[in-house]
Amino acid sequence: MKTRIRLTIEYDGTDYAGWQRQRNAIAVQQRIEEAIGALTGEAVAITGASRTDAGVHARGQVAHFDTESAILPGRWHLALNTLLPPDIRIRESREADQAFHARFHATAKEYVYTIHNAPTAPAIGRQYVWHVRKPLDAAAMRFAAGDIIGTHDFSACMAAGGESKTFVRTIYRSAIECDNSTIRFRIYGNGFLYNMVRILAGSLVYVGIGKLSPDCVQNALRAGDRLLLGPTAPPQGLTLMYVEYNPQ
Amino acid sequence: MKTRIRLTIEYDGTDYAGWQRQRNAIAVQQRIEEAIGALTGEAVAITGASRTDAGVHARGQVAHFDTESAILPGRWHLALNTLLPPDIRIRESREADQAFHARFHATAKEYVYTIHNAPTAPAIGRQYVWHVRKPLDAAAMRFAAGDIIGTHDFSACMAAGGESKTFVRTIYRSAIECDNSTIRFRIYGNGFLYNMVRILAGSLVYVGIGKLSPDCVQNALRAGDRLLLGPTAPPQGLTLMYVEYNPQ
Repeated sequence: MKTRIRLTIEYDGTDYAGWQRQRNAIAVQQRIEEAIGALTGEAVAITGASRTDAGVHARGQVAHFDTESAILPGRWHLALNTLLPPDIRIRESREADQAFHARFHATAKEYVYTIHNAPTAPAIGRQYVWHVRKPLDAAAMRFAAGDIIGTHDFSACMAAGGESKTFVRTIYRSAIECDNSTIRFRIYGNGFLYNMVRILAGSLVYVGIGKLSPDCVQNALRAGDRLLLGPTAPPQGLTLMYVEYNPQ
Repeated sequence: MKTRIRLTIEYDGTDYAGWQRQRNAIAVQQRIEEAIGALTGEAVAITGASRTDAGVHARGQVAHFDTESAILPGRWHLALNTLLPPDIRIRESREADQAFHARFHATAKEYVYTIHNAPTAPAIGRQYVWHVRKPLDAAAMRFAAGDIIGTHDFSACMAAGGESKTFVRTIYRSAIECDNSTIRFRIYGNGFLYNMVRILAGSLVYVGIGKLSPDCVQNALRAGDRLLLGPTAPPQGLTLMYVEYNPQ
């Protein structure tokens, strides 16, 4: 009789090729599968809610796997953390319904993209921000960020390589937060296309430095045209904050 | 004719043996001296305000050096940042009075010691905190932190190896700040003995978990007895925030 275990995972993506197992590089998924294998002898495949890219971080990635081990569901995080490297920490473990699927059953996710806006790059915490030297107009960015809210076809905000077959997503919140030299783009919605948050973050920065007009997001969504938007922001500024599910 | 240059420096101390040049390990001072040498051909010695230990960070270390280079004083930080590794950034450069001394003329410094108080260690930002698993009583810590304020003989809060000949220092502010899982010990005073902030931070954590009574700081200062205090907190939680000087 197999038990389905649900994990909540924090990781510093700096030294990883992303969440998903790769052929020639170390992924977070692989490290956790190896730790489960070392603990139980089982060859386990774990499924994550979000396939974060190389260099992207997570505070609340969610994943599930099945095991025949007798380890108590609420003790897995303690056992795994003794085996995992310090840049991956399991924050919580518990038993999930046999039907629970970390990816397909996710109802919403929040991401934060962090920008360090100052003449000099930071040394402390440089792994977690995009350093933008030119002064950013937060009001213009806020205007553009507001246009992301709602149900839209997000084809314009998608890189090649995604697996989505539908492009309509609903964004419940999209906001710009300022705190001294730090500018955060916080976005919460029912789903995200491949590179969507990084393309939006890059576009908002282009709005902030005046290279794009504040209505570019609105125009790009309407036209479905990637070329109306800015560059894909670098991965290290992005963090998956949490994943939501319907109560079981 | 030599010009005295004053630098304000941020560094992530994770990969360094501290500020001061060492025989067998890389120090921040050495990296900056090498960068100045690469820029000008001069063999320059720089003097820092605070000799931070291995693993300790700085947001506003101050240092001075003398040069015959024609580089404009306000441009040094730009030139040095192109040569320095990303974990060391010069935030500002300017000409200083010939008599200015970064260490001897410092009138006050602020340090922050950051504790992550949660069952699980953090992955993101783990380089900058001391992870304490047991719940901390912030009110008890605040009581003990208050007793640090004032002019005291701090012999009890000193490790061997310092160069100080007097042990009386004045602390203007000493406070505990709480922000979710983060507890910060912020201390601002006219001078600090070797390991003083880390010994106080370790003692406050012992007060927070109930291993020491809240009046231990007061008793230790009065008795001048290191044994009445807690352990030296690990280096990575400590950051030198800024150094102050009298206006010139």
